[in-house]
Amino acid sequence: MIVSAEEARALATEILRENGATERHAEIQADLLIEAELRGYASHGLFRLNRIIERIRNGVADPRTIGDRVWVTPGMLRVDGKMGLGPVVAVYALDEVSKRSHEIGIAAAAIHNNNHLGMLAWYAERIAQSGQIALCFSTSEALVHPWGGRTAMIGTNPIAIGIPAQPFPFVLDMATSLVAMGKIHDHANRREPIPSHWAVDQHGNPTTDAEAAKTGAIAPFGEAKGYALGLAFELLVSVLAESALGASVKGTLDSLDICNKGDVFIILSPGTGAGYNTYLSAYLDAVRACRPMAGFDGVSIPGDRSRACRQQRLETGLPIPDEVWDQLLRLSASHALHQIQGAIQ
Amino acid sequence: MIVSAEEARALATEILRENGATERHAEIQADLLIEAELRGYASHGLFRLNRIIERIRNGVADPRTIGDRVWVTPGMLRVDGKMGLGPVVAVYALDEVSKRSHEIGIAAAAIHNNNHLGMLAWYAERIAQSGQIALCFSTSEALVHPWGGRTAMIGTNPIAIGIPAQPFPFVLDMATSLVAMGKIHDHANRREPIPSHWAVDQHGNPTTDAEAAKTGAIAPFGEAKGYALGLAFELLVSVLAESALGASVKGTLDSLDICNKGDVFIILSPGTGAGYNTYLSAYLDAVRACRPMAGFDGVSIPGDRSRACRQQRLETGLPIPDEVWDQLLRLSASHALHQIQGAIQ
Repeated sequence: MIVSAEEARALATEILRENGATERHAEIQADLLIEAELRGYASHGLFRLNRIIERIRNGVADPRTIGDRVWVTPGMLRVDGKMGLGPVVAVYALDEVSKRSHEIGIAAAAIHNNNHLGMLAWYAERIAQSGQIALCFSTSEALVHPWGGRTAMIGTNPIAIGIPAQPFPFVLDMATSLVAMGKIHDHANRREPIPSHWAVDQHGNPTTDAEAAKTGAIAPFGEAKGYALGLAFELLVSVLAESALGASVKGTLDSLDICNKGDVFIILSPGTGAGYNTYLSAYLDAVRACRPMAGFDGVSIPGDRSRACRQQRLETGLPIPDEVWDQLLRLSASHALHQIQGAIQ
Repeated sequence: MIVSAEEARALATEILRENGATERHAEIQADLLIEAELRGYASHGLFRLNRIIERIRNGVADPRTIGDRVWVTPGMLRVDGKMGLGPVVAVYALDEVSKRSHEIGIAAAAIHNNNHLGMLAWYAERIAQSGQIALCFSTSEALVHPWGGRTAMIGTNPIAIGIPAQPFPFVLDMATSLVAMGKIHDHANRREPIPSHWAVDQHGNPTTDAEAAKTGAIAPFGEAKGYALGLAFELLVSVLAESALGASVKGTLDSLDICNKGDVFIILSPGTGAGYNTYLSAYLDAVRACRPMAGFDGVSIPGDRSRACRQQRLETGLPIPDEVWDQLLRLSASHALHQIQGAIQ
């Protein structure tokens, strides 16, 4: 079904409030989910809300806290998320680090004991729009095998990079896995095969069976180099946040475990002026105008496609699978009450 | 021919001194080249010295300067390399940033007007050995095409990441191109074809002709994701260092142009203790022990292979192509003098 972004936002916010989130926290978490839907990343969208609510009800997500933040050094903010909502804890940390970075040129946050951040582009864009550079990292459950190895030992460890540019910031957001586990689940649900280089089965053998891949491991993107980067991000985050590594990471895919992954944000404040911005933006336009190879419609800059999608969906609405929308309606106590009242009358 | 690392180091240092480098600067530049040879990266090794000397003689590399360093904010060191030797300017900046990062938790250097850095692993390892995390970036001439585009518009933009670990630090060093341009030149020299996904010719068509690829563009590693990362690093460095972008970058492959690329180092000081180090090192050992897939001897951690190579070559010596060694001997004035004296006697 098609739902307007504002209707979906209102419902998501209401559900979060009903489950104990303050007005502001509900707005932050809902905005992240709606922005993911707008940009075409349904895997980070409203379908995630059910798990978030389950985690609140199970006591492994606290929708009221913003976490404890301590500047361990002038440039490094250490954050104990206190099991808060991922984007709530992150946004409060991010705003503090952004302010500090404006003062001293660079600052970082290392966050542990925080719930799932969702789409990293949301954070990178927030910072880039304020004229700063953001490097965003987060770890996840081990779903990716090392290059040449048979077992899932590394998270899908996304990176987002936001850089100020005109008329809109440059925003890269990518996992270091070749594909998302959600994509493999989609294929399994539709009983479609997957390409043999995407994943291995539980024995570590390449498989085209999406169902078998679900209990196996996803390949890293970019072969040995992508593996190396994903591993480096796993270590980088863990060293700074003192968060769990590899198969010890829990709590972003389930409803019961305390989430022990880590998040790291590095914010840099460039001193470059308007002339430079023109130079950079002209370069990006030149790359967009690069003559496409056979089989390609054109060259796109990271963030272009999701921005176009967002623009369109603001007008046409969000395509939400019926079962996801029904689940949201069931999560909403006031909606349920409304239905009961309707039935009684 | 096989030359001991110390003999090669002595010759390289002598050549640099004879061309105006101070004792310390000659040692720094020579150490970088020798360490590249020891690790098996001949493309960053002694063969580069001829170009460095040509650049000194042409006045686009100054072997005496360490550049001008200014803390524009407490966390951001802005460096005008004053056309110094790449590793000399970088090491002085790095040491200052490392010290500041110890004090405030994180600090960065943005360097412009500096010559080629060479192997980034050398810098990342230096920092990781001191217990800090290093993120190292440098841009280069545009040799890489955007994903789906026909023209070289992006540098090979390497990244190095160094992270403290036991018994040796984790050191990742990789270009964001699929292969090095040096590898394509090697194939052209040997008149061997290249795989069709490595590069395009000057018209932007995929080619297996290494000679044609030399005037074309190399593919980014990891398809769209690797392209996105390489582009992000191009912007990141350029915004911070106010260095040139894309096809405007010059001076790392020629002997005449002032080098206008940029370098960025971010150094973070984790507060983690010995217990954590054990945890991280155990994780790395577990990844090394991951059962290999068919066709693989084992899983390796970035830096392992080059470390093993270094250990071996310290004992067995460096395999240097005769023409590279002869070129070094010709560069050495005192060696030439020695030969002339021998001929006269």
